[in-house]
This record gives sequence, C-alpha cells and structure tokens, in this order.
Amino acid sequence: MDPIEKVLSFIIEIEKLKDVKRKTRPVGLTRYENAAEHSWHVCLAALMLKDHANEEVDIDRVIKMLLIHDLGEIDAGDTIIYASETQAIKDKEAAGLKRLLAILPQDQAEEYLALWYEFELGESAESAYAKAIDRLPPLLHNLHGDGHSWRDNHITKEQIFSVNSRIAQGSESLWSTLELKLEKAMTNGILR
Amino acid sequence: MDPIEKVLSFIIEIEKLKDVKRKTRPVGLTRYENAAEHSWHVCLAALMLKDHANEEVDIDRVIKMLLIHDLGEIDAGDTIIYASETQAIKDKEAAGLKRLLAILPQDQAEEYLALWYEFELGESAESAYAKAIDRLPPLLHNLHGDGHSWRDNHITKEQIFSVNSRIAQGSESLWSTLELKLEKAMTNGILR
Repeated sequence: MDPIEKVLSFIIEIEKLKDVKRKTRPVGLTRYENAAEHSWHVCLAALMLKDHANEEVDIDRVIKMLLIHDLGEIDAGDTIIYASETQAIKDKEAAGLKRLLAILPQDQAEEYLALWYEFELGESAESAYAKAIDRLPPLLHNLHGDGHSWRDNHITKEQIFSVNSRIAQGSESLWSTLELKLEKAMTNGILR
Repeated sequence: MDPIEKVLSFIIEIEKLKDVKRKTRPVGLTRYENAAEHSWHVCLAALMLKDHANEEVDIDRVIKMLLIHDLGEIDAGDTIIYASETQAIKDKEAAGLKRLLAILPQDQAEEYLALWYEFELGESAESAYAKAIDRLPPLLHNLHGDGHSWRDNHITKEQIFSVNSRIAQGSESLWSTLELKLEKAMTNGILR
C-alpha cells in the first residue's frame, strides 16, 4: 500500500479516540471528557507550562508523547489513574497501540512505539514532565467541579495526595501550586 | 498574579474549545466533532504526513500552530471552510484569540499571537502545510460519511474541488491522493 494511504487509514482509525470516555467532566460542561480532546488539552498545557519543568525539556518530544499517549485506550478503554497502574491494563494498552501503529509505515510505527514506552516508564526528563501534565486536567476538573469524579469513584484524600504528589517528579513548582489548592479544597469541603 | 496561576487560568478557559461544534461528524460517530478533538487530530495527522509536505517543514512549529489554530473559535464559533474566509470572521477570531492569550504571561501571548497570524497568512512552508492538513479531516469525514456535511450545507462539487485544491500548496502528493478519492466519490454518488 502507498505510504500516504497507510497514514490516511491510520488517521481514520484513530478517530475512535474521540469516542473513548474519561472519568471527569471538563470545567463548565455536563458531559464527560473524551480522550482525544484531553490529548489536545495536555499538549497545550505542556507547551504553556514548559518553563516550570524541573529539568529543561525538549518540549517537542513532550508534545509528541502526549499526542500519542492515550491511543492504546481505543482498544483498552480509559481507566481512572487511581486504578490504572496494573500490568494487565498496561499490557492491553500496549497491544492496542501496536495494533494501531501497525497501520503506519514500519519506521514510523517503531519510532512512536519507542516514544510511548519512554512515556510509560516516566524516567526521562520529558516523560516525567509529560506524566505530570497528564495528571493536571483531572485535578482542575475536580477542583472546579465540586470533586465530582473523586466522589463518584470513591477516591480518598490519601489517594489523591499520594498519586498526584508524583507531579513533583516532573514539576515541583506545579505540584506546590496544586497542593495548596487541594488543601484549600479540604477546607472548603470540595475534597472530603 | 503568579505565572503558573496565569497559565492554569488559561488552561481552564480553553476548555471551552471542547464545546465548539464543527460541521462534520467523525468517521463512525453520529455526533458532530468539536474543535478541541479536531485540533488533536490534525496535530497527529500533520506529524504522520510530514514527509509529504512540499518543502521540508519544521514539524514542531506546525504542531504548535495547529494546537492553537482554532482557539479564536471559542468566542467566534466555527464556520464551515466554504464560508469562513471573510474579513469579519477573521477579525472576530483574532479578537477571541487575543482575549484568551491575554490571560497568559505577556511574552507567551506575543509568541502565540504571531504564530497564529503566520498560520492565517499561509505563506511560510509551515503554515501552508498546516493549512493543508487542517482541510483533511472534513474531507475524510464526508468521503466516509456519505457526504453528509456537503449535502447539509449545500456545497457544490465546484466549491469542493476549488477550495480543497489549495491543499496542493502544502502537499501536492496529499492533494493528488485526495483528488482521486473525490473523483471516485463522484462516480459512486457520494459527491453529487
């Protein structure tokens, strides 16, 4: 198959990410967010916050990671962060991503699979920062949406602080800001 | 205000792009697309098709353009490409973008406003390519969706070929591929 035709098939197949529902509602909307619009949101958030990463990051690699980071959810579905870090879920996402990337020319498939594994590991400066940014929107959605997803999914204060404190691995200044907001949310009853 | 707080306010304000409805339905979905998920889709399409741009492009600048290209629609709304190129609409989008960018620290606001104007002009290699990619998803949605948006909006064959032939300014090989698909769509009755 012609390389352009392969990419067009990929572009059509990934439309399905627009139909993957996440667990929070965007600020001001009553419906749940989908994983495609979330992917756009974190790319732009990462770009605008890049000077606050702990280490200097190659923001272009961060954005590429975030553009593809949720593609595996087309087959695996979205899982809330507080329950998502099991090997079974990660394996399902990896398999889903591989199925999609196999539609592309082989060199591209290999490049983006490697980038996804780097993101998942979270050890490079870029992936630590990308993972920190990925955690930001659900916090904002809850903080500005009466903690709806925390309540609906029975997430405890301890879980919220423990899982999200890992934002500091990518951006200590971002985590300091968010930590204060979470403490305020305990005072005003949004986080209970 | 603290720079991080400014960016967080911006990140919350741009959530509204998830509520801007476009004029086509994604392949396989019955609902209309929103401008946020579209923005993600064109970023990834641009990345995967970059070797087919007419000139070598700085793909990272292309992606940044596409991440912000529709932000003005939060205030201006989405207009179908066949009717969008009036000065009044462009002015409204520019005003909308400026309102949003004013939430950010000033240096960032200036950088992204300049990038948006470059995109709108479409004269640099990056913006010509970005504009070509921006036109791709609506064509795929129509070609794989019985020409729904062409029909609903009374778009003629002549308009479709004339407006979209400008894709060739960014990627001749992409336009050749799409032109063949449009001709086939005339034969099989999707484009009538």
